[in-house]
Amino acid sequence: MDSALLQRQLAFILELEKLKQVLRKTRPLGLSRYENSAEHSWQVALMAVTLVEYAHEPVDLDRVIKLLLVHDIAEIDVGDTIVYAASRVEGIAEKDLRAAQRIFGLLPEAQGAELLALWKEYESRETAEARFAQAMDRLMPVLHNLNNGGQSWRENGISKQQVLEKNAKIGEGAPELWRWLLGQIETAHEKGWLR
Amino acid sequence: MDSALLQRQLAFILELEKLKQVLRKTRPLGLSRYENSAEHSWQVALMAVTLVEYAHEPVDLDRVIKLLLVHDIAEIDVGDTIVYAASRVEGIAEKDLRAAQRIFGLLPEAQGAELLALWKEYESRETAEARFAQAMDRLMPVLHNLNNGGQSWRENGISKQQVLEKNAKIGEGAPELWRWLLGQIETAHEKGWLR
Repeated sequence: MDSALLQRQLAFILELEKLKQVLRKTRPLGLSRYENSAEHSWQVALMAVTLVEYAHEPVDLDRVIKLLLVHDIAEIDVGDTIVYAASRVEGIAEKDLRAAQRIFGLLPEAQGAELLALWKEYESRETAEARFAQAMDRLMPVLHNLNNGGQSWRENGISKQQVLEKNAKIGEGAPELWRWLLGQIETAHEKGWLR
Repeated sequence: MDSALLQRQLAFILELEKLKQVLRKTRPLGLSRYENSAEHSWQVALMAVTLVEYAHEPVDLDRVIKLLLVHDIAEIDVGDTIVYAASRVEGIAEKDLRAAQRIFGLLPEAQGAELLALWKEYESRETAEARFAQAMDRLMPVLHNLNNGGQSWRENGISKQQVLEKNAKIGEGAPELWRWLLGQIETAHEKGWLR
């Protein structure tokens, strides 16, 4: 066994600890604390397993899962940004890329390159797997809001228009789910959960 | 789209929320709170991706990942038990099985049966994938302890003998890692982190 390689792998695994303290804007149902990006990553991976039949195009589910396991890792350095934030940029932001390069760079070279490629694939939305994975990532907080009285929408003053615009990508990855969601979002608006 | 089926799938996804409040005995590095089983499940899945080269037998990594994503789900009903607890039984405990059946039973039948089969595969240790996945699950808290001054070992009065006995299964799934760990555990004992 190459002990120096193992040390790099262990350093990466321990670096992952830090994603447990990156907080999102959603509170898990029934809890007062905010959700962190590590537990979120687990839940969306299982969500993809559950909802893969709704993928717009045929997808390799195993790769979708891997994309979702790594998709938020750059947040270790840059934190979570709510999808509705004005500062959010489309495509891969330079600071996110630098973060991903640093974190996956902890690993032995070939292994780090492989995981960085998965992270870039997710961000770039160029594959069916990335589009479906992003649909899952967008869908989860909408589901949270539909089931907790619109908690993060109300806390952040989000409008129906914002929800429709920012989540339209769900329609590219999982169009049937998006059509179903449109009715749900309308109902949420009528209930006053959205501006 | 079959709306009744979707409702069952969404009920399962929302049930997963509850694993975020199941607390383990380990504190994430740098945090004062305890780790929950949802974020742990994410970390061990990525740990398996990172350390798969140390698997004792060739494994299907994608199935290992799925086993680890579902391995703790029964804890939603029964809670987490530290590996050193006297009450812990080998094999599948009746109450764990009932919990898994209830939770995966929220899903449409065929889908629930498929995920329950993964959960049982993990518990039964009869495949190379399950043995490697269990090795990852055991290794993670040992790594935590080696890097946080033996926090959960000291808080729970764990002895070196217990650590060696209860984690010997790591040797079945990942023998090289186990041999490396033996030296680390010896050092931890010398430092007074283990009885």
